Formats: sequence, C-alpha cells, structure tokens
Amino acid sequence: MNLLDDVPEAAEAEIVSLLLSRPGVRIERIVSTGQVTPVDAPYDQDHDEWVLLLAGGAGLWVEGDGERTLRPGDAVLIPAHRRHRVTWTAAPTVWLAIHFG
Amino acid sequence: MNLLDDVPEAAEAEIVSLLLSRPGVRIERIVSTGQVTPVDAPYDQDHDEWVLLLAGGAGLWVEGDGERTLRPGDAVLIPAHRRHRVTWTAAPTVWLAIHFG
Repeated sequence: MNLLDDVPEAAEAEIVSLLLSRPGVRIERIVSTGQVTPVDAPYDQDHDEWVLLLAGGAGLWVEGDGERTLRPGDAVLIPAHRRHRVTWTAAPTVWLAIHFG
Repeated sequence: MNLLDDVPEAAEAEIVSLLLSRPGVRIERIVSTGQVTPVDAPYDQDHDEWVLLLAGGAGLWVEGDGERTLRPGDAVLIPAHRRHRVTWTAAPTVWLAIHFG
C-alpha cells in the first residue's frame, strides 16, 4: 500500500481510511482537499493523537500553542482534551493520524 | 519536530530515534544510509511492526512474500515472527516504524 497514491485533488469532505487497528492504537490516513475545522467547533478528543503531515500543507491551531504551518515531515502530538483546529489545507494534503487509547 | 530535517547523508550505523511511547505502541524514526540487515541474521520479532518509508528508497525481504522495493509513501505490516531483512537502502532513507505490544 502506498499512502501517497490514489489521492484526489478535490473531494466534498475529508477522506479518512483506517489503516491499522490494535489495542490502544488506531492508524488512519486522512486526505484533505481544502477542508478546515469550523471555528466554533474545534476538536476536543478524549485521547492523545499524533499527526504527521506526509504531503501538501496545512495550518494547525492548538489551544495554548497558537497556530502553526505544517509542511511534509512535520509531526505534532495533540494531548487529550487540548482543543485544536485545522485552519487551512492545501489540495491535496495527506496526513497520518495515530489515535491512542 | 520535522522528521525529514537533520538527516545525515552518511553515518556508521542506522540512527534510531524514539518519537513516542505509549502502552502497547512505540513510534520510532530510523535513518538509514546504506545499511542492510545481514543475510544470516534476519529480524525475528515477537511483536507486529508497521513501517512507512518517508524518504529515500529501500529493499525489504519478508519471509513468504519475497523482496520488494519501497518508495516514499509505501507502508508494510510485518507480523510478529515473520522473518525480514532490509536488503538495500538509499542514503539517506527515512523510515517511520511503529512497534506494537
């Protein structure tokens, strides 16, 4: 499987593919094509998440840390209950997301 | 942290960096600069491992599957006790390795 293959340049919504699931951990590929998180509906998860940007580019706002620009290779740990939002995404952008617990 | 930064083009051995550890899962970055697994000493691990090639290129032999060429974006699940070897690596090659259990 190649995570950079079959990546559309446009889609109505983010495309989330479960790659692997084990006790306590879930690995996803997420393809974004311009989608953002609504300002009034940030993510607030009850588990830690580790994201790695594989291709494209994105803005990520994390409560307490502010907004940063992510480029390929950038990895961020988002602790549980730390509110966060994707503020912009290039089309296409490919993420690896690892959810713990 | 950017996983593609600070990647040497030559080193005496593979450079393994622990990125994150949680119950049942360990995430590493591995930088290879030509190193291979000795033919007479394949890996034989007691846990599943999932690898994603981030940059460079490599050959991976897995018992029962034969040898394949990995390019950026390629991901492979190596089940526990499935013997495997890295047969060649470009310099530099960057891997994400996730060890389960």
